[in-house]
Amino acid sequence: MGASHNLRSSKIILWGIPLDETTSFRRGTYLGPERIRQCSYGLETYSPVFERDLSEVKFFDAGDISLPRGKLEQSLKNIEKFAYSFLKRNFKLLSLGGEHLISLPLIKAASSVFPELRVIHLDAHADLRGKYLGNELSHASVMRRVCEFLKPSNLYQFGIRSGLKEEFDFGKKNTRFYPFSLEKVDKVIDELSPKPVYLSIDIDVIDPAFAPGTGTPEPNGITPKELFNFLEKIKSLNLIAVDVVEVSPPNDTSDITSLLGAKIVREILFLL
Amino acid sequence: MGASHNLRSSKIILWGIPLDETTSFRRGTYLGPERIRQCSYGLETYSPVFERDLSEVKFFDAGDISLPRGKLEQSLKNIEKFAYSFLKRNFKLLSLGGEHLISLPLIKAASSVFPELRVIHLDAHADLRGKYLGNELSHASVMRRVCEFLKPSNLYQFGIRSGLKEEFDFGKKNTRFYPFSLEKVDKVIDELSPKPVYLSIDIDVIDPAFAPGTGTPEPNGITPKELFNFLEKIKSLNLIAVDVVEVSPPNDTSDITSLLGAKIVREILFLL
Amino acid sequence: MGASHNLRSSKIILWGIPLDETTSFRRGTYLGPERIRQCSYGLETYSPVFERDLSEVKFFDAGDISLPRGKLEQSLKNIEKFAYSFLKRNFKLLSLGGEHLISLPLIKAASSVFPELRVIHLDAHADLRGKYLGNELSHASVMRRVCEFLKPSNLYQFGIRSGLKEEFDFGKKNTRFYPFSLEKVDKVIDELSPKPVYLSIDIDVIDPAFAPGTGTPEPNGITPKELFNFLEKIKSLNLIAVDVVEVSPPNDTSDITSLLGAKIVREILFLL
Amino acid sequence: MGASHNLRSSKIILWGIPLDETTSFRRGTYLGPERIRQCSYGLETYSPVFERDLSEVKFFDAGDISLPRGKLEQSLKNIEKFAYSFLKRNFKLLSLGGEHLISLPLIKAASSVFPELRVIHLDAHADLRGKYLGNELSHASVMRRVCEFLKPSNLYQFGIRSGLKEEFDFGKKNTRFYPFSLEKVDKVIDELSPKPVYLSIDIDVIDPAFAPGTGTPEPNGITPKELFNFLEKIKSLNLIAVDVVEVSPPNDTSDITSLLGAKIVREILFLL
Amino acid sequence: MGASHNLRSSKIILWGIPLDETTSFRRGTYLGPERIRQCSYGLETYSPVFERDLSEVKFFDAGDISLPRGKLEQSLKNIEKFAYSFLKRNFKLLSLGGEHLISLPLIKAASSVFPELRVIHLDAHADLRGKYLGNELSHASVMRRVCEFLKPSNLYQFGIRSGLKEEFDFGKKNTRFYPFSLEKVDKVIDELSPKPVYLSIDIDVIDPAFAPGTGTPEPNGITPKELFNFLEKIKSLNLIAVDVVEVSPPNDTSDITSLLGAKIVREILFLL
Amino acid sequence: MGASHNLRSSKIILWGIPLDETTSFRRGTYLGPERIRQCSYGLETYSPVFERDLSEVKFFDAGDISLPRGKLEQSLKNIEKFAYSFLKRNFKLLSLGGEHLISLPLIKAASSVFPELRVIHLDAHADLRGKYLGNELSHASVMRRVCEFLKPSNLYQFGIRSGLKEEFDFGKKNTRFYPFSLEKVDKVIDELSPKPVYLSIDIDVIDPAFAPGTGTPEPNGITPKELFNFLEKIKSLNLIAVDVVEVSPPNDTSDITSLLGAKIVREILFLL
Repeated sequence: MGASHNLRSSKIILWGIPLDETTSFRRGTYLGPERIRQCSYGLETYSPVFERDLSEVKFFDAGDISLPRGKLEQSLKNIEKFAYSFLKRNFKLLSLGGEHLISLPLIKAASSVFPELRVIHLDAHADLRGKYLGNELSHASVMRRVCEFLKPSNLYQFGIRSGLKEEFDFGKKNTRFYPFSLEKVDKVIDELSPKPVYLSIDIDVIDPAFAPGTGTPEPNGITPKELFNFLEKIKSLNLIAVDVVEVSPPNDTSDITSLLGAKIVREILFLL
Repeated sequence: MGASHNLRSSKIILWGIPLDETTSFRRGTYLGPERIRQCSYGLETYSPVFERDLSEVKFFDAGDISLPRGKLEQSLKNIEKFAYSFLKRNFKLLSLGGEHLISLPLIKAASSVFPELRVIHLDAHADLRGKYLGNELSHASVMRRVCEFLKPSNLYQFGIRSGLKEEFDFGKKNTRFYPFSLEKVDKVIDELSPKPVYLSIDIDVIDPAFAPGTGTPEPNGITPKELFNFLEKIKSLNLIAVDVVEVSPPNDTSDITSLLGAKIVREILFLL
Repeated sequence: MGASHNLRSSKIILWGIPLDETTSFRRGTYLGPERIRQCSYGLETYSPVFERDLSEVKFFDAGDISLPRGKLEQSLKNIEKFAYSFLKRNFKLLSLGGEHLISLPLIKAASSVFPELRVIHLDAHADLRGKYLGNELSHASVMRRVCEFLKPSNLYQFGIRSGLKEEFDFGKKNTRFYPFSLEKVDKVIDELSPKPVYLSIDIDVIDPAFAPGTGTPEPNGITPKELFNFLEKIKSLNLIAVDVVEVSPPNDTSDITSLLGAKIVREILFLL
Repeated sequence: MGASHNLRSSKIILWGIPLDETTSFRRGTYLGPERIRQCSYGLETYSPVFERDLSEVKFFDAGDISLPRGKLEQSLKNIEKFAYSFLKRNFKLLSLGGEHLISLPLIKAASSVFPELRVIHLDAHADLRGKYLGNELSHASVMRRVCEFLKPSNLYQFGIRSGLKEEFDFGKKNTRFYPFSLEKVDKVIDELSPKPVYLSIDIDVIDPAFAPGTGTPEPNGITPKELFNFLEKIKSLNLIAVDVVEVSPPNDTSDITSLLGAKIVREILFLL
Repeated sequence: MGASHNLRSSKIILWGIPLDETTSFRRGTYLGPERIRQCSYGLETYSPVFERDLSEVKFFDAGDISLPRGKLEQSLKNIEKFAYSFLKRNFKLLSLGGEHLISLPLIKAASSVFPELRVIHLDAHADLRGKYLGNELSHASVMRRVCEFLKPSNLYQFGIRSGLKEEFDFGKKNTRFYPFSLEKVDKVIDELSPKPVYLSIDIDVIDPAFAPGTGTPEPNGITPKELFNFLEKIKSLNLIAVDVVEVSPPNDTSDITSLLGAKIVREILFLL
Repeated sequence: MGASHNLRSSKIILWGIPLDETTSFRRGTYLGPERIRQCSYGLETYSPVFERDLSEVKFFDAGDISLPRGKLEQSLKNIEKFAYSFLKRNFKLLSLGGEHLISLPLIKAASSVFPELRVIHLDAHADLRGKYLGNELSHASVMRRVCEFLKPSNLYQFGIRSGLKEEFDFGKKNTRFYPFSLEKVDKVIDELSPKPVYLSIDIDVIDPAFAPGTGTPEPNGITPKELFNFLEKIKSLNLIAVDVVEVSPPNDTSDITSLLGAKIVREILFLL
C-alpha cells in the first residue's frame, strides 16, 4: 500500500485475516490479503476524490494473523481477542478477509468496546441463515449470528439480492433491510451520525463483471461507481472499524478484483 | 438447479442441446448446459424479485439430448421431433444451448403446434444472413431461416448491435426491429399479450464484461440489469417455450457467464 | 480488419507499434496490435451506428513497425520519422500500441506538420509525471513530455481518475483538464472544430471489467457505451491522427479487451 | 469410472475424502475426488497390462464423505469410523483424497482391524515432522503420527526426496526407508507377502511434469512408468486398503494429474 | 515454418485439415494447424540431427482446407479428393490435423495411388472400434475403417496402450500389433523398405507431460526422445505421406504440444 | 529461500537481474527472480543429496537490481560493475535471470577478476549467432559475444540441441562443444579442476515438460534428473559464479518451472 508507519504513531491498524474454512462453492479467499497488498503497487497513493494522499494517513500494516488450520472456533477466538485489544486502545481497525465469517468475532469485539455500535453490511447475500450445511458457524449465517448479540435493528443491510425466503423474511422483519441497491443510505445517515459504526463490505455486493474473483459471485450486482459514491456519502460517520472480505484471487486471472479491493481499502483509509 | 420433479407431475421440461457445429470464431457452447447446471449450485432457489421459490415450480430436467456428431441436418431433425412431441403434450420447454442454430428446429416445432406464434429474439447479432461461410444452416443465419416459415412481422428483435448492412436492411424492412437496447418492449407488450410467445435469448446480447464466455462477444452490449428488467416486464405474456443459447464456458475462466445463465434460467422458470 | 487497399489509393495508414519498454506493473502491450487484428475477424465490417461499411473506407494496413529492442530513444526516433513522412504526404494515421509512450513521437510528428494541433487525451491516468522510476521517458510521463513542445492549453484531457497530487495540480493549472468522465467534451467541440486534432485513447480509460487486458487497470472507469457516445460526438472534428494504446492481451484470457479495441478501431476508421 | 455395482455384491468400496484443511502452499485437493471421477470418462475400462476389464471388478462408489468444515478432529474421527465399519465387514477400501492427513484415520482404522498391518508409503516428502506450523495434525507430519500407533519398522517408505534433516534421520533410524526411487521394493516383497498391507500414494511422488496438479510439487521425481511398474510388482501382496491423495486440480489446467490419478485408481482396482 | 516455395518447384505439400467433428472428451484440434505454424517461429530451420536446413527442402504450404461444418461425410470426401489429386501428381503429402479421423480419407487416397501401401500408426489408442458412440465414423474407429480397404496385416501399430478388450484382440489377431513402445520397429524395417509407406502420428502416443494439449490424453506414454529416435530409424523408408494429428492447443496453456508438433513436422520434412 | 545472513559474514551473494529486453518469442523472464523466491517457500532447506541444510550456508540475498528500462547498454554496464565489485572482494555470485544476455556482463566481470576463467554453458540453444534480428546484443548471441573476450576453447557447451548451421559449425570448430546431453562432462572434469569456473544454466536446457515456463522452449531436452546428476559430478570444481536464466513464470500456470529453478538454486548454494 506504499505506506507503513510505526505502531505507536499510528491511529489505524491494517491487517489480513486469511480465514477460508467454511467457503462452500469455490475457495481461495485465504489468498486475498496478500494479493490486495501486491495489487496496491499498481495504484497511486493519492485519491483525487478525497484530494488527500496516503502519506497523510497514519496507519500500520500488522501483516496477516496466523490461524490454526482446522480449528475454526479457536481461530475466531484469536481474531476477537486481537481485535478487542486494539479497539480498546483506541486504534481503528481495517481488516482484509478471508471469508465473511471473520466479521463475527470482529463485530463481537467492536460491540464489546462500543455498546452503542451500529453495523452497516454491504453484500449480495443476506447471510442470515440459521444454519448452513449443518453448521451454525458459516459465511452464510454470519449476520444471523451477529443478531444474537447485536440488536437486529442496529444492523443496516444494503445491496442484498440473494437469499432464502426465510432470510428475506427475517431481514424485512428484524434488521434495517434495504435490498438490491445502496441508494437508501441517505435515509439513515442522520440517525447513524452520532453512533460508532462498523462497516462490513463483502466484495460480492459488486457485480461479477467487476469482481469475478470471489467465492460465490451473484449476477446482477451494483457497480464500483455506486460503491464509491456510497463511501463518499458516509464520510461524516464515525467509523471505528471496517472489513473488506471474500476477495478470492484464484478465480480472477486478470486480478481486477484485487485491484478493486485495493482501491476500496485506500479510500477507506481516508474515511477512518 | 436444485429441483427435479418427475415428468408426469411437471409442467415444464428443461433440457440441454449441446450442438456446437457451425460456430465460427471460437467453439465451446457444447459445454454450456453442463456448466450452467453446475453453476446453479452457487445460486439460491429463491427469487427475491418474483418472491417465489423453485420448489413451487414443477419442472423436469430431461438431461442433454444426444446428437450424432458431424450430421447437422439429422441433429436438427431430432431436436425438432423431441420439441414437437413435448409441446404437443402441453409441456412448456426451456432449452439450454449449444449454439444459436438450435432455435431453428425449436421454433419450427413451436410454430407447428402454435400457428399464432410470436418470437422474441434478444441478441447482439441480427442472425439474418442469407448464407454464412457458404452454409445456409448457421448460427449467423438462424433468424433468416426462421423467416422462411414464420411471417417476419411476427419476429420481434431486440438489442441487435451487429450485422451486415443487408441484415439491418432486411430487419428494418421485414421484422419488428428494435436495435441497440431492450427498451422498446413496452411498445409491443399489448399486441403480444394474447399470443403464444417463443423467447430466444442469445447470451451475447449482454455486454462481454458480464458475459465473456460466448462464441462471438460483441462489445458495447446491454447490462444484466436491463435483461432482468426486461424479464419482469414480459411476465404477463404467454410464454410457451424459451431458449438460452451461446454460453461457451471455456472462454470464461471465472464462470460468471454460466452463473449469469443459471440465474436467467431460474427467473425464466418463474415466468413459464 | 477485413479490408486492405493498396497504399496509393488509400487515405489512411493503419499500423502497429509494439513498443513495450517502460511498462511498470505488468507487460504485454507488445502483443496488442497482433491480437487486435486477429479479433477483428470476430466483428462485422459494417457499423450500424455510422451506417457505413469498412469497404467504403480506403485504408492501408502497413503491419507492425520493427523496433530495435533495448534502444528506446532510437525506437522513438524511428516512430517519429515514419509518422512525419506519412502525415506530410497527407495520410491520416491510425496507430495501435504498444505502450502509451508511443504517443510522444507521434504527437511530435503531428505538431511539426500541423502547428495548430490540438490533442485530445482519454486515459485513467494523468500521465503528467516529471519522472517515473527515474526515467523522463515513460508511459507515466508521456503527456508531461508532450507539454514541453505543445502549449499545455492545447491538450484536452478527459476521464483521468488517477495520478499523483502534483499531476492533478499541474493538470488543473495548465491543461484543459476534465477528470472522471467524458461528458465535458460538449463544452469544447466548438473551439476544436476548426483545428487539426490528434486523439490518443489509452484503453484503461475504460473500466477494468470491460478492459481487463491492460498494463495498469484502474478501477471505477467509464463504460464502452460512454466512449462510443464520445466518438459519435466528435465526428465533426478534423481528426488527423489517432492512437489506441495499452491493450495487453496476456492479462485477458477472454480477449474482450482486444475485441473492444478492434471495435474502437473500426469506428475510428469511419471518423478519419 | 464407468462401473458401479450395488453395495451388497461388491467387495471394494471407492469413496472420496475431500479434506483440505492443513495444506500450506496451495490448496485445491478438496476438488480431487470429483475431478478424478470426471476424468475417468476419458479412459477405457480395460487394462491392457492386467488384461482385465473393470466390468469384472465388483466395486461400489460411495461418493464423497461430507465433513464438518473447520472441525479437523471431528472430521478425522468420522473418517476413521466409516473406514473401520467397512474394513470390519471385509470390504476393501480405496480412498481418494483430499490431503495426505486423511491417511492417519484410515491407517488407524486398518491397524485396528488388522493388527499385523504393514504400510507402504509412496511420497516425495517424508511426512515425518514432529509438528508443522505449530500443528501436530498436518499433511507434513502424518506418517510421524502413524508411527505413534504402528511400529515404525512396519512402515515402508519409497521415493522420498524431500524433508528436514530430522525427518531423514528419523526415517533412516526407525522406518523401512528407501528414498529417491521405488526400485528397492523387490527387497521387501517376500517379507510383506503374508501380511495385510495398506498402500498410501501421495501423487507428488511423481515428477511435477507428469503431476503438476498437487499442493507441494517437488522437482526431480519418479515417472508414471516407474509407478505402474511398481504396481505390477506388488500384485501378489494382500492389499486391504489403498489411498491416492494430494491431487489438486486447480493447479493443472490440462487435467493431466487427474487423468493420471484416474488411471492409477483403475489399476489399483485390479490389484484389490 | 519459415519456408515456402512455389507449388511447381515443390516436391512436398504441407496442409492443415482442421476437422474437429467427432472428438468426444474435449475439443480443440481444429486450432491445431494454425498454432503449429505459429509455434514454428520459435524453432530454428536447421536440424542438428539430420544436419540439414529447411531451406534445402522444397515444400509448399497450401494453408488449411475449408470444410463444410456439420457435414462429416462431405468433408471426408473433399479431403480424399484433394489428397488423391496431389499424390497422383507425385507430390508427397504432410497433413496437420485436426482429429484422427482425417487419416481415413488420406489413407484411402494413398492406397488408391499406391496399391502396395503399408501404414505405420503411432498412437496411445488402438482406434480399432467397430463403432464409437453409435457412429462408424469416429476418431476412435479410424484404423478399423482403414482395415476395411487395407489388408490388416499391412497396418503396423506401435505404442498403443489403451483400448477395449476387443480392440486389443482384433489388433493381436489381425494387424501388426506392437503395443506399449516403439522399440519393435527394428524388426520390420527390412520388410517395409521396398514398400510405399504412410505414417500416421497421433500426438497422444507421447506422454501427457510432454503433450498435454490433445483431446484424450492417456497417461504413461512414450517420450519425445523415443519418437525422434524412431524417426531417425525409419529414414531409409519410402514415405509417401505423413499426418500429425490430435494437437489441441486450448488444453495446453504453455504451447509445448504445438511446439513439439512443429519440431516433429520439421524433422519429417527432412524424411520426405 | 528461507535464509539470509548479513552481508559481512556471507561468502555468497544471491541477486536477481530482471532484464527482459531482447526476448523474441514470448516475454516474462523479468518476473523470474521474484517467482523463484516465492516458490522457494514450497521447498525444504535441507538437501538429502548433499546432506546439508541451507542454514549452514552463509549467503546474502541482495534483492533485484534496478535497471533503466529501454537502455540496454547502460543496464549491461551496471550489471558488470556490480558483479565486478563483489567478485573482486571475494564474494561468490549466484545470479537469477532475467534473459540470457545477462551472462555477457557477468562473465565479462568474472574474466576480469579471474583471467584463467573457464565457462560451462548448459542450454538448448547454441547462442552463438553473429547477430539476431539485427542486434549484436541478444539472448541468441550471448555466447558469441563472450567468445570475443574469452578464448572460445575455454567455453564448454553442453546440451545444445538447436541453432543455425553456422552456430553448430562455429561451436564444433571453436568451443568445447558437447551437444544433445550432459554426459560428456566426465571427460573434462580433470582439466577444469584447477581453474576458476563460471557456470551458466539456461533453464531451457531442460525438456519443456519439466520447464514449460521459459521464453523459447525447445522440445526433446534433458531431464531434471540429468541436470542434478551433472551438479553432483561437478561438485569438486572451483565455481566462482553461477547464473540461472530464462525462467519465465507467465508461461507456466502450475509454477513447476520456478519450483525447479528454486531447487537448482538450492543445490548450487551447496556447490558454491
